[in-house]
Amino acid sequence: MRARLIQIDPADNVAIVTEAASKGETVSGLTLLSDIPQGHKVALRDLKKGEAVLRYAVVLGYLLEDVKKGMWINEHMLELPLQPSLDELQFSQPDDVLLPKPGRTTFEGYENPDGGYAGTRNILAITTTVQCVSGVVDQLVRRIKSELLPKYPNVDSVVAINHAYGCGVAINAPDAVIPIRSIRNTIKNPNFGGQVMVVGLGCEKLTVDKLLNEEEINVENVIMLQDHSGFVAMMDALMQMADSKLKKLNERKRTTLPLSKLCIGMQCGGSDAFSGITANPAAGHASDLLVSGGATVMFSEVTEVRDGVHLLAKRCTSKEAVDKLVAEIGWYDQYLAKGSVDRSANPTPGNKKGGLSNIVEKAMGSIVKSGKAPIVEVIGPGELPTKRGLLFAATPASDIVCGPSQLASGITLQVFMTGRGTPYGLAEAPVIKVCSRNVMKQMWQDLIDLDAGGIATGEETVQEVGERLFNLILDVASGQKPYAEQFGLNNFLCYFNPAPIT
Amino acid sequence: MRARLIQIDPADNVAIVTEAASKGETVSGLTLLSDIPQGHKVALRDLKKGEAVLRYAVVLGYLLEDVKKGMWINEHMLELPLQPSLDELQFSQPDDVLLPKPGRTTFEGYENPDGGYAGTRNILAITTTVQCVSGVVDQLVRRIKSELLPKYPNVDSVVAINHAYGCGVAINAPDAVIPIRSIRNTIKNPNFGGQVMVVGLGCEKLTVDKLLNEEEINVENVIMLQDHSGFVAMMDALMQMADSKLKKLNERKRTTLPLSKLCIGMQCGGSDAFSGITANPAAGHASDLLVSGGATVMFSEVTEVRDGVHLLAKRCTSKEAVDKLVAEIGWYDQYLAKGSVDRSANPTPGNKKGGLSNIVEKAMGSIVKSGKAPIVEVIGPGELPTKRGLLFAATPASDIVCGPSQLASGITLQVFMTGRGTPYGLAEAPVIKVCSRNVMKQMWQDLIDLDAGGIATGEETVQEVGERLFNLILDVASGQKPYAEQFGLNNFLCYFNPAPIT
Ligand SMILES: [Ca+2]
Ligand SMILES: [Ca+2]
Ligand SMILES: [Ca+2]
Ligand SMILES: [Ca+2]
Ligand SMILES: [Ca+2]
Repeated sequence: MRARLIQIDPADNVAIVTEAASKGETVSGLTLLSDIPQGHKVALRDLKKGEAVLRYAVVLGYLLEDVKKGMWINEHMLELPLQPSLDELQFSQPDDVLLPKPGRTTFEGYENPDGGYAGTRNILAITTTVQCVSGVVDQLVRRIKSELLPKYPNVDSVVAINHAYGCGVAINAPDAVIPIRSIRNTIKNPNFGGQVMVVGLGCEKLTVDKLLNEEEINVENVIMLQDHSGFVAMMDALMQMADSKLKKLNERKRTTLPLSKLCIGMQCGGSDAFSGITANPAAGHASDLLVSGGATVMFSEVTEVRDGVHLLAKRCTSKEAVDKLVAEIGWYDQYLAKGSVDRSANPTPGNKKGGLSNIVEKAMGSIVKSGKAPIVEVIGPGELPTKRGLLFAATPASDIVCGPSQLASGITLQVFMTGRGTPYGLAEAPVIKVCSRNVMKQMWQDLIDLDAGGIATGEETVQEVGERLFNLILDVASGQKPYAEQFGLNNFLCYFNPAPIT
Repeated sequence: MRARLIQIDPADNVAIVTEAASKGETVSGLTLLSDIPQGHKVALRDLKKGEAVLRYAVVLGYLLEDVKKGMWINEHMLELPLQPSLDELQFSQPDDVLLPKPGRTTFEGYENPDGGYAGTRNILAITTTVQCVSGVVDQLVRRIKSELLPKYPNVDSVVAINHAYGCGVAINAPDAVIPIRSIRNTIKNPNFGGQVMVVGLGCEKLTVDKLLNEEEINVENVIMLQDHSGFVAMMDALMQMADSKLKKLNERKRTTLPLSKLCIGMQCGGSDAFSGITANPAAGHASDLLVSGGATVMFSEVTEVRDGVHLLAKRCTSKEAVDKLVAEIGWYDQYLAKGSVDRSANPTPGNKKGGLSNIVEKAMGSIVKSGKAPIVEVIGPGELPTKRGLLFAATPASDIVCGPSQLASGITLQVFMTGRGTPYGLAEAPVIKVCSRNVMKQMWQDLIDLDAGGIATGEETVQEVGERLFNLILDVASGQKPYAEQFGLNNFLCYFNPAPIT
């Protein structure tokens, strides 16, 4: 592929080259004054010593020397800006942002009885209080799929909300609130249509009252296996309950709904040097279109954004949001420290070789998937949003933990950006996989749903790919199946449990 | 049921009553001098102030007053013995123990190429390096079961060793050694016949070299999904590898083997007031028969045995074992403290009401399942034993974490004692479920394999039930299927990962 320049934001005074390029070469109309390695920065205009270098519309550092248009800017030429500590982060009214206007303002979803977000799928979810019962529930799901589901054509599928929590855990440890609320809130995910079916054992620590409201705890919704005389008897009772839930779910129909009924999540995994240039910025543009149209979008991954936290704080629309950001990120710093893990994502030698001058530039490659919209709310892992718009959900970056956390917070669809490729999928909500390079799509034709690699080759702009992604999100929300859903590729749920196992 | 006395050990000077009984009543030949609540202790002979009260052949405390034969001994009448701190535990040659002689000395198992423990099952295990690939491997297992397994009648089943580890984890954190060695050692479980099949992604932190020896890392044993062009292509490659492994496994045959080729695990879960009186002592007798016959038995559950750790130390046959015990238990104390969890299992008001006077008496109800044999080795969670005989494997008590830890340490069968009942099972090794009361067996006819409740009703002795269990263990090791295996009830694997998620 021929070298090109990629400028992420119109405000940027640097771009990066998509391929190594030599002094004298003209790349995207700019004549280079230095040899420039792949992924590294080039000055887009003459810059003075002391001037700020802007990428992602963010100050990466201040120049230690004058730089001519076309020259390489490497990490030795930059004085790093001071990163404020968490304690110093304060609320100030964010700058006004002009968001792009979406061409579509509706999708076809499943309205819910509570009037909240709508479902993108119509799924029977069977939630367990404790891992002990998962063997029975797995057998149950198999039987439901073969014996009951064919009778209810409007129901998309049945899923077991199996998890490793529930017993042998320190249920009163301070951090136990995280897995408990995550499981509790998952039950109410909009894709599950308000139907509650909980399977417990009877002697677990995670008692049903920790998961359901009092009026929901009844024989219509809850089965405790120790109350039933043996395996065959419990399966009969479970099949009967499932049948009555499926009947109700089968009455749901898709209707045309405004984007304010849509709540989606963004995450990345297996990132590469192009993720921050192609897939993530395109996701950011799609996010801005969604938010502009009234939808709710959450992004996450504390360890990925940690070193750009001051930039997130600047976008928060309230003091509450900044305070919550500081609390959640501070908690995570301590959590890592307790495990003798350094929170710092200092660029590795490999990062620097790839052109990432500092930790802020690295974090921005992840943050850029949140677009430019203001951050209206910050929530902890597994918490429910109370506002519509762009949210930061402070979950781990781990793909398989971020997924369930966002499901608990109510997403009905996830967009997953990848560089290296992963067959990731969720049974509870469709996952759209976006790759950062054309070669990835060529390699995994039947696993990657959208290729953002054209941004690197110059075939498409960030805005064009972002718009394609926006349209695909609405199509998938309306029922179109991405590859992982077609093949039934689902990662099992790993809820975040920072408290001890006993 | 009529009240009876249960004396656990011939050396005990107290027994407990199986039902509440009144002053003047004669219970098992003893005339009571007090009203005695269910599960509480009664003096079997006249005892003097200052004399030690012995149960499980262990000093529970010293009498604060004279007590007549037939009187109630409650927690107010006992001065508690001092519990030595971990620092004070020291090795001293344990007392000689005469173990019972087993009536059977062989079982029918699958010998392994490495000459170590034999399998009780012949299973193809497909191990994943990272949770990202679990969706693909789940689909693979479905296809193998329907397309390949019918061709290989000598192979019992195929299992995915899926787990939540591999990426988004602090792979260099000190505690990361635990999940890494657990997954590594699981691959070599004797039930998997020495056949190695590992599925990775390509960009995970848990690289294949952390799981396999250098000479095992080749195209016969390892598939990385990022090397294959899409889902259909990776499934083809995986099916081909599985087919060649199944061919080799299909050549395995059961042969008559000495008990020294058998390695089993014990754990309890959902215990009740009878667990420590019926099911666990019976398991202890079965354990003594196995160990006496040359087998290896491991018991676990740190938090359950914590307050009797000085009694475990006394049974250790080497200084190394005592030092390791202190190190593992000390590590666990700190792990709980980091999560702001108290390690102490101080009897709850419910425990005391149930007759457990103190923390040692409570711990003994769990420790008694290890019988009387000396402890030849102590291992950490997921470590491999180097000695044959009785071992303490210092895993969490959590049923679903203890199971995989013991599998990693090489058990090929697990005995699971329960009071309240759990449908627990493992796909990787058969699980025998033993209940503590007749009513449990009556309730769960098709889930409980052996009822130890007859010990409470007087229909059987601990030795008789223990012998029945010993015989059942050998039958199941030789191929007989317990209920969980018949119904395919399997708990998914939760490896112990005390290190942070990133
Ligand atoms: Ca990442
Ligand atoms: Ca991620
Ligand atoms: Ca327990
Ligand atoms: Ca227990
Ligand atoms: Ca247990």
